[in-house]
Amino acid sequence: MGGRALIQQVLLVDELQQWVEQYRSKASEGKCASYIPALYRTDPNQLGICIIEPTGKMHMAGDWEAPFTMQSISKVISFIAACCYHGIPYVLDRVDVEPTGDAFNSIIRLEMNKPGKPFNPMINAGAITTSSLLPGQTPDHKLRYLYAFFSKITGVTPTVNEEVFLSEWENSHRNRALAHYLKDTGYLACEVEDALEVYLTQCSIEVTTEQIALIGLILALDGFHPMRNEQVLPKDVVRLAKALMLTCGMYDASGKFAANVGLPAKSGVSGGIMTLVPPNRKPHSPLQDGCGIGIFGPSIDGCGNSVAGVSLLKHIAQEWDVSIF
Amino acid sequence: MGGRALIQQVLLVDELQQWVEQYRSKASEGKCASYIPALYRTDPNQLGICIIEPTGKMHMAGDWEAPFTMQSISKVISFIAACCYHGIPYVLDRVDVEPTGDAFNSIIRLEMNKPGKPFNPMINAGAITTSSLLPGQTPDHKLRYLYAFFSKITGVTPTVNEEVFLSEWENSHRNRALAHYLKDTGYLACEVEDALEVYLTQCSIEVTTEQIALIGLILALDGFHPMRNEQVLPKDVVRLAKALMLTCGMYDASGKFAANVGLPAKSGVSGGIMTLVPPNRKPHSPLQDGCGIGIFGPSIDGCGNSVAGVSLLKHIAQEWDVSIF
Amino acid sequence: MGGRALIQQVLLVDELQQWVEQYRSKASEGKCASYIPALYRTDPNQLGICIIEPTGKMHMAGDWEAPFTMQSISKVISFIAACCYHGIPYVLDRVDVEPTGDAFNSIIRLEMNKPGKPFNPMINAGAITTSSLLPGQTPDHKLRYLYAFFSKITGVTPTVNEEVFLSEWENSHRNRALAHYLKDTGYLACEVEDALEVYLTQCSIEVTTEQIALIGLILALDGFHPMRNEQVLPKDVVRLAKALMLTCGMYDASGKFAANVGLPAKSGVSGGIMTLVPPNRKPHSPLQDGCGIGIFGPSIDGCGNSVAGVSLLKHIAQEWDVSIF
Amino acid sequence: MGGRALIQQVLLVDELQQWVEQYRSKASEGKCASYIPALYRTDPNQLGICIIEPTGKMHMAGDWEAPFTMQSISKVISFIAACCYHGIPYVLDRVDVEPTGDAFNSIIRLEMNKPGKPFNPMINAGAITTSSLLPGQTPDHKLRYLYAFFSKITGVTPTVNEEVFLSEWENSHRNRALAHYLKDTGYLACEVEDALEVYLTQCSIEVTTEQIALIGLILALDGFHPMRNEQVLPKDVVRLAKALMLTCGMYDASGKFAANVGLPAKSGVSGGIMTLVPPNRKPHSPLQDGCGIGIFGPSIDGCGNSVAGVSLLKHIAQEWDVSIF
Repeated sequence: MGGRALIQQVLLVDELQQWVEQYRSKASEGKCASYIPALYRTDPNQLGICIIEPTGKMHMAGDWEAPFTMQSISKVISFIAACCYHGIPYVLDRVDVEPTGDAFNSIIRLEMNKPGKPFNPMINAGAITTSSLLPGQTPDHKLRYLYAFFSKITGVTPTVNEEVFLSEWENSHRNRALAHYLKDTGYLACEVEDALEVYLTQCSIEVTTEQIALIGLILALDGFHPMRNEQVLPKDVVRLAKALMLTCGMYDASGKFAANVGLPAKSGVSGGIMTLVPPNRKPHSPLQDGCGIGIFGPSIDGCGNSVAGVSLLKHIAQEWDVSIF
Repeated sequence: MGGRALIQQVLLVDELQQWVEQYRSKASEGKCASYIPALYRTDPNQLGICIIEPTGKMHMAGDWEAPFTMQSISKVISFIAACCYHGIPYVLDRVDVEPTGDAFNSIIRLEMNKPGKPFNPMINAGAITTSSLLPGQTPDHKLRYLYAFFSKITGVTPTVNEEVFLSEWENSHRNRALAHYLKDTGYLACEVEDALEVYLTQCSIEVTTEQIALIGLILALDGFHPMRNEQVLPKDVVRLAKALMLTCGMYDASGKFAANVGLPAKSGVSGGIMTLVPPNRKPHSPLQDGCGIGIFGPSIDGCGNSVAGVSLLKHIAQEWDVSIF
Repeated sequence: MGGRALIQQVLLVDELQQWVEQYRSKASEGKCASYIPALYRTDPNQLGICIIEPTGKMHMAGDWEAPFTMQSISKVISFIAACCYHGIPYVLDRVDVEPTGDAFNSIIRLEMNKPGKPFNPMINAGAITTSSLLPGQTPDHKLRYLYAFFSKITGVTPTVNEEVFLSEWENSHRNRALAHYLKDTGYLACEVEDALEVYLTQCSIEVTTEQIALIGLILALDGFHPMRNEQVLPKDVVRLAKALMLTCGMYDASGKFAANVGLPAKSGVSGGIMTLVPPNRKPHSPLQDGCGIGIFGPSIDGCGNSVAGVSLLKHIAQEWDVSIF
Repeated sequence: MGGRALIQQVLLVDELQQWVEQYRSKASEGKCASYIPALYRTDPNQLGICIIEPTGKMHMAGDWEAPFTMQSISKVISFIAACCYHGIPYVLDRVDVEPTGDAFNSIIRLEMNKPGKPFNPMINAGAITTSSLLPGQTPDHKLRYLYAFFSKITGVTPTVNEEVFLSEWENSHRNRALAHYLKDTGYLACEVEDALEVYLTQCSIEVTTEQIALIGLILALDGFHPMRNEQVLPKDVVRLAKALMLTCGMYDASGKFAANVGLPAKSGVSGGIMTLVPPNRKPHSPLQDGCGIGIFGPSIDGCGNSVAGVSLLKHIAQEWDVSIF
């Protein structure tokens, strides 16, 4: 690394730390997810970020080491996993890739649009369908397949936060409504309770910003793991996943996020955001070779996205010119 | 231009011509827009493409010179024009930027989502609102502003196809329903008939693939006109427009287009598609410096997009690796 | 009239006067229709009732002589008129007879339910359709037919309140939205502006509680005018109209009105309610030979029904046991 | 019974038998409910009717003795039972009494209308809520209360068709979706599986046309059992139930049934219809003292109503002038 680059990197972390402190107070504009008791007890004022570049270089600031559950961020992993096993066309026959403008847990379209195919795998209806498509006859088998996938990408065996899982399991009537509806219309590929066990377990996988930044980096590089020098995911599936993240990844604020930030991203109600910068080779950009970004800020807005996290990303996108548009 | 680049460019046109002939037959899977009589009489088997690079170099194939009306492609221009006049926040207070998953002429959300703000400027409800926001007390004034904008970008004074305009004017009851609804809820900034006159006139501006390719090129370069060496549009507005094109530009198939092609694009029911490749500097890509692309293929699918045009773009995206993801 | 009956009748008026004063204060729980300026200036504390028996005997109390515009009560007359001219099947091919549970000015179902046939003639979409079906090439002809109908029943030439008409004409964007939608889907039988002129004019016909009580009486007697000893309306059409009044006549509170009062009724946003008691021959009931009832109480609730009027009718239904159930 | 009345009664049965044969062939215009396998195997060409007068006199024709399961007819019983236990206001706080225009198993309104209160107890969402309100901590206790009610009215201990129950239990994903949604929004008063067990068990109670005619008779007489000379149900609850049957009892064809037949009725997907004629004392009517009517015709239309049964009732209503309007 040359002198100028070194200086740039030092400045980069300095700026990150400054911005994290600047946006931390945004937490007061939202609140922690209340429908899952275990999430509601989190300290809302946390904010952390981790950026990983293709060289493996990491930039961290704030509460970047705090563990949190993936929640909806896991939808990206299970979608990629299902596509790798069945092939893209098989999966897209069972779940569409259209944004909806509806809340993440909306059921209306399953009845309104015939034949009731879930609109995309980033909302709950589509994600539960995707989880049901994972290979294996039992929830354990399906999860084992998903865990292997997670390990292959992150190099880490996933840990499930059992308290969060149980809390969700007992408070998931809306998800059960969606799953039974999908079972009725034939889109669910296994039993309702099995699909929910898989789905809620994957939501309860505990990560840090570093892990989701690493996943983001591999997505940024079209499935290539730069530190292991290995293509760990197929390029066409990763491209599809990134398109879905951009159009549907931030719940019913996906359009605004695309407009304001311009990066493929997936958020979770625990306050995590996994996003990425594809290599853009703009000479002036500090992240021109691409990177993965992990964010954690548990206070969420009405759509389900981290208030402070979205503000921080908007700031970064403007300052460092990383939008894909 | 060096020898290798020259060869590449020759090959590029050869390939374009071959692919146009290959996908022309796709027209039979759709039909020309039937609700506007003047459009219905078009030869459905036309297919043309024009690509313009920052150097001004053009690559053309098929019916690239055939004139057609902009229809919904004009929504991009009027949105940019309104934002340039009022500033982005003023416009976004009156029209959101969220994709809907609904048909382009859907009215349901105006009643279902309180307070009935139109979801985005790429569907009819939002586009009529945008047209009403153009400066000027009369339709003529508003259109003059829009025409000046069009001329500034393309260097050409726009021509309106009066036959198409009249045909639409007489068959626009669904648009009138939307406009009256928006007037009732307070989102329309002028009289209903005035907004419709502006909107339907801008839809009837006649272009060729060359002109929309040029607009696309300027969008690809964030508002910079490379041949005139001038920033003709503000960068932030162009970025916003491109984000909207990606999430909402292809009607209720926007998600599939993002997944399959991965480029910001806007289609019209006349069969036009305006799209663009941002500079990506991928060494192997024949369009690494970015380009604008204009397509014309009047046979459209159920969502309102050119059947052959979408297929051709999907092919190009895969062969030349131009997806933004 | 024997002694016992005479006493009963005297008591009846005494009770009416007492109840009117009792429920007049209910006006404070609602407010006068605000979207029509001319209506909004009415004194909200008025409450009047007129009951007419088959013998012609009238019982009045409160502001029974105050004039008010029919508004939606006119939907019953135009529906009967259209059925008399075209026959019931022709009309029911163009407007259904199902209650909706939606607000009176809702447009959602026209798009959601294919093929978009209006659900019933008591909501705006269906009523505008019905007005368009009246015979005649111009609004004047259609209205002349309707007026003749009105005169035939009431013996009075209708007077239109021009101020209210103009006020509605200028504030009818929601109705225009409905009419254009219906024009687009083919259900409107004339031009949009003509249908609206007929519809808004019939809404502006000025009546008193006496006139709507007389219409109610004739409906109660299946179209028979007892004082003129003449069948003025066909029995099958009147029966159909009464069924519609019961299931759909009180906007989206029709179910509650059927449950609490149990009489066919039609309300208007001006605060009028036209209702009726079919002959029930219950020996203990003071209205056992049937009657028509007209109510006026301009303060309306969120559904559009007279607050004091509905309360008064609920009281009457319970005290005098006139429910049809 | 005098000579004239005797003759009338003989004619009445003659006519019934003739009409049953006439409308039996209507079965071909529908088909047996296919989503419950046990129902689908029924002979669709059955048609039976039983009419019971206050004197106890019965008129029967066709397959009146064939057993069938109550299905949605049971919704009337459970609603009455819940009201008797909790009082009407308590129940109406948890389920509204408005017709919807939607299919019986629709879920849209629970999300669209805030706060998601089920619209009426005659559609599945409202009926499952009502079943959850029955007193008792377990499904057995709730059912015991319901059975006692059924026995009190009919004098018969109810028999549950276990095959139908199991068939429904295994194919009730749509009902489970509704119940979980209601649990999520707080309207369900017990656990989801318990509410469904009660609801699906009550649907599987086996009856004949005679039993539902007897229930209908008691409803016609405002809760009075004429043969036992006892008020078995409270008058206000029965009145409310009859209003609900008229506005919401025939699924999304309730408006048409009210228009064409004009009687409070409740149908079930097994092909049963329970209806009634209130005493009308019209001298020319053969049923002027009121009656209960039970129908069975298992071939149902798209709304879920017996095709032949509805046609037969329409014929009877016209011939014998029994409409309540």
